[in-house]
Amino acid sequence: MPNETSPRILCVGALTLDTIFRLDRLPPGPGKYLPVDAVEIAAGMASSAAASIARLGGNVSLFASTGQDDTGRRVVAELTAEGVDCAYVRSVGGARSAFSSIFVDAIGERMIVPFYDAALLSAPDVLPPIADGTFDVVMTDVRWPLAAAKVLKAAREAGVDGILDADTASLETLEMLLPLASHIVASEPAAERVTGESDPERATVALAALYGRDGAFIAVTAGDKGCFWYDELEGEVRHMPAFPVDVVDTLAAGDVFHGVFAWGLARGYPTYQIMRFASAAAAIKCSRFGGRRGAPTRAEIETFLT
Amino acid sequence: MPNETSPRILCVGALTLDTIFRLDRLPPGPGKYLPVDAVEIAAGMASSAAASIARLGGNVSLFASTGQDDTGRRVVAELTAEGVDCAYVRSVGGARSAFSSIFVDAIGERMIVPFYDAALLSAPDVLPPIADGTFDVVMTDVRWPLAAAKVLKAAREAGVDGILDADTASLETLEMLLPLASHIVASEPAAERVTGESDPERATVALAALYGRDGAFIAVTAGDKGCFWYDELEGEVRHMPAFPVDVVDTLAAGDVFHGVFAWGLARGYPTYQIMRFASAAAAIKCSRFGGRRGAPTRAEIETFLT
Repeated sequence: MPNETSPRILCVGALTLDTIFRLDRLPPGPGKYLPVDAVEIAAGMASSAAASIARLGGNVSLFASTGQDDTGRRVVAELTAEGVDCAYVRSVGGARSAFSSIFVDAIGERMIVPFYDAALLSAPDVLPPIADGTFDVVMTDVRWPLAAAKVLKAAREAGVDGILDADTASLETLEMLLPLASHIVASEPAAERVTGESDPERATVALAALYGRDGAFIAVTAGDKGCFWYDELEGEVRHMPAFPVDVVDTLAAGDVFHGVFAWGLARGYPTYQIMRFASAAAAIKCSRFGGRRGAPTRAEIETFLT
Repeated sequence: MPNETSPRILCVGALTLDTIFRLDRLPPGPGKYLPVDAVEIAAGMASSAAASIARLGGNVSLFASTGQDDTGRRVVAELTAEGVDCAYVRSVGGARSAFSSIFVDAIGERMIVPFYDAALLSAPDVLPPIADGTFDVVMTDVRWPLAAAKVLKAAREAGVDGILDADTASLETLEMLLPLASHIVASEPAAERVTGESDPERATVALAALYGRDGAFIAVTAGDKGCFWYDELEGEVRHMPAFPVDVVDTLAAGDVFHGVFAWGLARGYPTYQIMRFASAAAAIKCSRFGGRRGAPTRAEIETFLT
């Protein structure tokens, strides 16, 4: 049962050093372009979600992989300083840590070039202690599929909620992981890839038909169209509009949403309240430059919602 | 007088953490693009030149600025490991270290987005010990003009050769620094900016007329058109064609050229031999991906030239 006082969450997946530049417009071709602003930040889907949970005061651990290099030491040190427990981060000998460069323009369009060493994606030999009930909720992304599959299975066996942040990935990866999760929160393009439905409401229904049979919770996030989830009791889709903000940078908005979702689930909050909190957190994040650096505190979300 | 056994060189200017991605083609618009290869490397004009000198076995110190942050500690550690003396690197409180992201395509075209904190560009209060003859040659770039001006003046007063790596910068910066150098090695676009001459041979003549009066050495590097220099005794321009190679990445080719030029000058080599060595080093570098990572050793240059 979720522990209201100090539930523990495990996030599983990507860890990367992002260099994010804000430009008036994306580079149209060869040349040198001066940015308006720039940050270097430890990120990646699961890691950004974990940092967002820590910012809410949540108790969160990260299961991810780095190489044994400067970049790996740096991202672990940064997330540790943010309050994320990195004791389970795997350091892979001979591998290079992941890094990305991201250009964001004034209307939020992005150019992303990520570097991943395939050696970081090998199946983990050892899992964090999921079977013994150390964690109240686990959340996996689609960037380290062999770990996500093992973790979601272990969570199911332990009776622990297992969230899948189903963002864009190969259909093979999505179809491997979707049946293993108790809670699926898919992005609009990933939901379309799996269901063929471009309308997020219809994609929610289709995902529920495919993966909701064992009572799994199904949701689809659709950016400025808000989020949709399947209400099993009523047999219908519910919708939460996106909160209107002046959008500066949507980078990591989905990760912040998922982090807050996991945090609310771990605390046993009602679904509507979880979705409202997560939507507000994502909206606040979108109003700030710097990827997950813009994730809000709990007080900021509560102020935003009053 | 240059010391043939172990001359000391001081490089002055830029220090940055470059993230360099090699792509089949530059991103044509918003989206995610997977690179063929990628490196993170301590670079910047003067720093890349310094690392190239160290790779030749040269005795080289760097005068540059970092912030007091992870990126600053990392670039200093990396260059120190390469054999560059970083004892004079200035650490600026409250400033952020410089970093850049660079995309390079299959034909060597580049998209560069650099981030510089203006606080790193403040005039230095203290110079390395130039007046006492510690260094046989100083070389400055155009990225930290207030330091370059002081260092070139101090070198002139001490009777020490002062090289200016005159790459593209504001006309104001170029016109401030050019009169202070005993050796000007300008890039083709910078030479054109100063002289109005788009032909590198004519630009060399024009630069010599403007800045060669006190006997300053004048050269212009022009990529695959080779390099040009003014032979004061003969009153004519000499030309060294570029060595033909399969070009993979021209990034930092100019910095490698300047590093080898400074090294040859410090060792008292004849001008023709310096230009030949520097041209060969730049050509080898262009055949390798990864910016200044591709700088050759002395043995590699000698093998290339035999």
